[in-house]
Amino acid sequence: MAHPMFVKHQDLLGSAVHAIESRGCWSPYSDDLADYGENAVEAGRKAFFEAYPDAQFYLDQPGVVGRGGGEASPYGAALNISYPKCSADALIAAAKTAMPAWAKAGPDVRAGVCAEILERLNRRSIELAFATMHTTGQSFAAAFPEAGAGAQGRGLEAVAYAWREMKHVPYRATWEQERGARAPLKLEKRYAVMPRGVALAFSCAETPTSSSYPGIFASLATGNAVIVKPHPEAILPLAITVALMRQTLKEAGFDPDLVSLLVDTAAAPVAREVALKPDVRIIDYAGDAEFGEWLEQNVHDVLLFTEKPGVSCVVVDGAADYVGMLDNIALSLTANAGQRRGAPQVVFVSRQGVRASTHMAHAATIPAERFGPDLARAIGRRLEDAAAACELLGAIRSPATQARLDALAEAGEVMRAAEPIAHPQWPEAVVRAPLLLQVPVDAGDLWMEESGCPAAFIVETATTAQSLALAERAMREKGSLMFSVYSDNENIVQLAEEASLRTGTPLAVGLVGDFVAGRTAAFSDYRASGANPAARGCLTDGGFVAGRFFVVQSYRNA
Amino acid sequence: MAHPMFVKHQDLLGSAVHAIESRGCWSPYSDDLADYGENAVEAGRKAFFEAYPDAQFYLDQPGVVGRGGGEASPYGAALNISYPKCSADALIAAAKTAMPAWAKAGPDVRAGVCAEILERLNRRSIELAFATMHTTGQSFAAAFPEAGAGAQGRGLEAVAYAWREMKHVPYRATWEQERGARAPLKLEKRYAVMPRGVALAFSCAETPTSSSYPGIFASLATGNAVIVKPHPEAILPLAITVALMRQTLKEAGFDPDLVSLLVDTAAAPVAREVALKPDVRIIDYAGDAEFGEWLEQNVHDVLLFTEKPGVSCVVVDGAADYVGMLDNIALSLTANAGQRRGAPQVVFVSRQGVRASTHMAHAATIPAERFGPDLARAIGRRLEDAAAACELLGAIRSPATQARLDALAEAGEVMRAAEPIAHPQWPEAVVRAPLLLQVPVDAGDLWMEESGCPAAFIVETATTAQSLALAERAMREKGSLMFSVYSDNENIVQLAEEASLRTGTPLAVGLVGDFVAGRTAAFSDYRASGANPAARGCLTDGGFVAGRFFVVQSYRNA
Repeated sequence: MAHPMFVKHQDLLGSAVHAIESRGCWSPYSDDLADYGENAVEAGRKAFFEAYPDAQFYLDQPGVVGRGGGEASPYGAALNISYPKCSADALIAAAKTAMPAWAKAGPDVRAGVCAEILERLNRRSIELAFATMHTTGQSFAAAFPEAGAGAQGRGLEAVAYAWREMKHVPYRATWEQERGARAPLKLEKRYAVMPRGVALAFSCAETPTSSSYPGIFASLATGNAVIVKPHPEAILPLAITVALMRQTLKEAGFDPDLVSLLVDTAAAPVAREVALKPDVRIIDYAGDAEFGEWLEQNVHDVLLFTEKPGVSCVVVDGAADYVGMLDNIALSLTANAGQRRGAPQVVFVSRQGVRASTHMAHAATIPAERFGPDLARAIGRRLEDAAAACELLGAIRSPATQARLDALAEAGEVMRAAEPIAHPQWPEAVVRAPLLLQVPVDAGDLWMEESGCPAAFIVETATTAQSLALAERAMREKGSLMFSVYSDNENIVQLAEEASLRTGTPLAVGLVGDFVAGRTAAFSDYRASGANPAARGCLTDGGFVAGRFFVVQSYRNA
Repeated sequence: MAHPMFVKHQDLLGSAVHAIESRGCWSPYSDDLADYGENAVEAGRKAFFEAYPDAQFYLDQPGVVGRGGGEASPYGAALNISYPKCSADALIAAAKTAMPAWAKAGPDVRAGVCAEILERLNRRSIELAFATMHTTGQSFAAAFPEAGAGAQGRGLEAVAYAWREMKHVPYRATWEQERGARAPLKLEKRYAVMPRGVALAFSCAETPTSSSYPGIFASLATGNAVIVKPHPEAILPLAITVALMRQTLKEAGFDPDLVSLLVDTAAAPVAREVALKPDVRIIDYAGDAEFGEWLEQNVHDVLLFTEKPGVSCVVVDGAADYVGMLDNIALSLTANAGQRRGAPQVVFVSRQGVRASTHMAHAATIPAERFGPDLARAIGRRLEDAAAACELLGAIRSPATQARLDALAEAGEVMRAAEPIAHPQWPEAVVRAPLLLQVPVDAGDLWMEESGCPAAFIVETATTAQSLALAERAMREKGSLMFSVYSDNENIVQLAEEASLRTGTPLAVGLVGDFVAGRTAAFSDYRASGANPAARGCLTDGGFVAGRFFVVQSYRNA
């Protein structure tokens, strides 16, 4: 008899597979607060602050050796949450015990259980948004779609890829070879999908759920057990996730130790030790470059996907809508400023100026020296209202980020200062406008290194061709998740497309309106590509899921 | 306009995709000599000996720095063929120049050109069989299906997987989000399949074409250029292949440098140096364990598939057909003896004897001590006729293999000696019967290391449960491509199935008749699984092809 969770979600899974192949606008998870009920936000806020501050988060995991935690809210809310700290060896042993029954359940049951988990996570989107806000510094307005529907969509997308890939493998076949007058040769064959092994999923401090759900769900759907290792500054969103997953797995008839949470602290990190355990066969990592590169050099015979910082470039050549362009770049620079992977960091503009051809009686060329001040004013327009500005910018998570921001202000010509903005609800929150600096083209030590703070660089070049060449070099050498180009010249757009293809960087052409460069939608956008140093994989394609399982066959004479 | 080679092969590709999903008995390439025309073998032999001995093999590759070669026929035929030796840097540079147009041509054109190449290779199967025979030592009877239709089927199978995987990515999509009263948000998106980079394909000395075609065609079909690095003792089959591929690519309108041959010698190997070149992004390797392990430890951020020696185990518990079982094991031990990957190496039989239940009036238990002599006699029956024995066994390629065989004869109780057999046509050929040795269960240093010569070990255990445990340990630690079990007890079969699944070793249950254990059929058998040390990938599944390309997207406001 089919598992009830598969029966319940079978149509959804079919739609999800259709969506990954047609890639239009589709998601079963709404990012419209109105769909979550009246007063949902207030009720959620109240529930959040009743449940978590000073709580001992409950997880019935094996091998508990103590408690840890110590997250601090960038908004100044008192958290003081502790989590069970478990021995990695105990979690691995429990994961291995849990896997055989999960493997045996087959692709349909696993996909159905994963879909049920995601539906339940979706119902807790507001709680997850508050948990994300108070660990990452994202505003509630940013965290709600990102940590909720956005992350859930990426999770279901991974399940759809995994399910389709596994369903390509038949359960059985009869092999029969005619041999003329002699009896045909005949074999009965069976094919089993087997998990690769224990998976380790590292989440990052900026977007803990959306950075880790693809790997977590891709591994789980393909039969593996998953140990989730959150960044020590953003544990809660993953703790809520893991607790819900364990509960759902249990209700579905499986061992909850298929998913567990491994908590450590910055002072006593366990990541390297765990990554080298021989039973760990899959690692998904999102985080800083240093540990990502260490993983790339040190783990062997492990399926490894890393996502690390890169340099996102904007090339400004000309625009059909100059003001629309400025407004859009300003939006991309201010949306969750500097704490969002793929946010623009460097804007190239040529000394020959910016051709602006529409919304004017005649085509005009804006002088290059006007571009910086124009962009600064466009940023200013986005930040006129302090409350709205805080929702757009979010709060700065760590003092190190502030320090970097202040140090950078000395490093170039300030087009717009990173002025502090008082948060109307959270007086302790550090909210800063993005710093806009003009730096010379040869200051690659500045603009070619991810700043890790809300700062963007304007770099003046000799020609747009040079802008494209510099962008291509940065994307190839440093990696990049996003490349944006504005031009009314199709030859320039074509050159940009070729640079995008050569470096494997997703390209946005002439973006205006409410689209934030670098923000991606599950089921439609391939986030990253795997082809440049910013990411070793693509969210999501066949390559992200296919290596997570093996096919093992048996046969006998028929 | 569609490319003529795609038009020609579109139906074939559709059938191939159907075949990889249904996995019955299917191949467009016949392994029946009768289908190749009357006198095809004699004509092929004549043509082979006219064309190749003392030839300077012509390849119009860049960067020629000299000539090399020096293969010796295990049958004593005079070869003395030389090949152009090219600078690896020149081949890589030419490959990179050739790739953009090939990438741009798209999945359909590339799949069509690959199918045309395979059709043309198929027409030269007899020539490829002679080239394989006189480099590897396989008999003509063995080489014809293996190096011809078998390898070609594996090539087309890889093309089918690659084509299906790439076709899952749409060319474009419109993303449109309704926003109530406001105008909908709308983006036009495009998705491009881009190659990973230059691929390096290492072929082995035993089965040069079938071990390398999957990787070569998977890489080429996904848009990559391929440098083929043959084992220095078996160059000719790949030289013929590469020359034909280059000619076909040229006719199809592409740069022949998409495929090139990199020749070296055992005295001056280039493999390590080439494998570490930063432009090499994919490596497929089949060969000895030493270099395979070196690759696994030393290449980073390269898609790496290795196939190395493993230990193939047979567990004998009971048999419905005792004589049929003996005959089948004898066939597997004598077919291209000891030079075929996946050939059985160790046969476990328990002290409790072998239940034999059919072809007898009543069930009987054959005492364990009778099993070795019975199997020795079954081998003898296969070798009664010297000419047929030579076709079955093939010739031993290297003096080192002979030396290993002679040394092993001192290492255990000889059940059947590796007697030399005079070849009726080739007096210089070294043909040896397989050595059958009984060794103690604690002589794991013998039976758990691939012998690399035509030798098999009988190991007597206390119980079949111990046999299964020992086999599982060998498969897990040493890797294995094949596991064979004979039992009339379904509980034992189930235990064997579980060991097969746990270790990722393909399982044959109760094989009798003309099936050779470890020999696999394209489109039906998943060769290896990727789950144990004998192979890092499976021939062929989605995971074998999906990482060979990236998806890069672009979008603009609609």
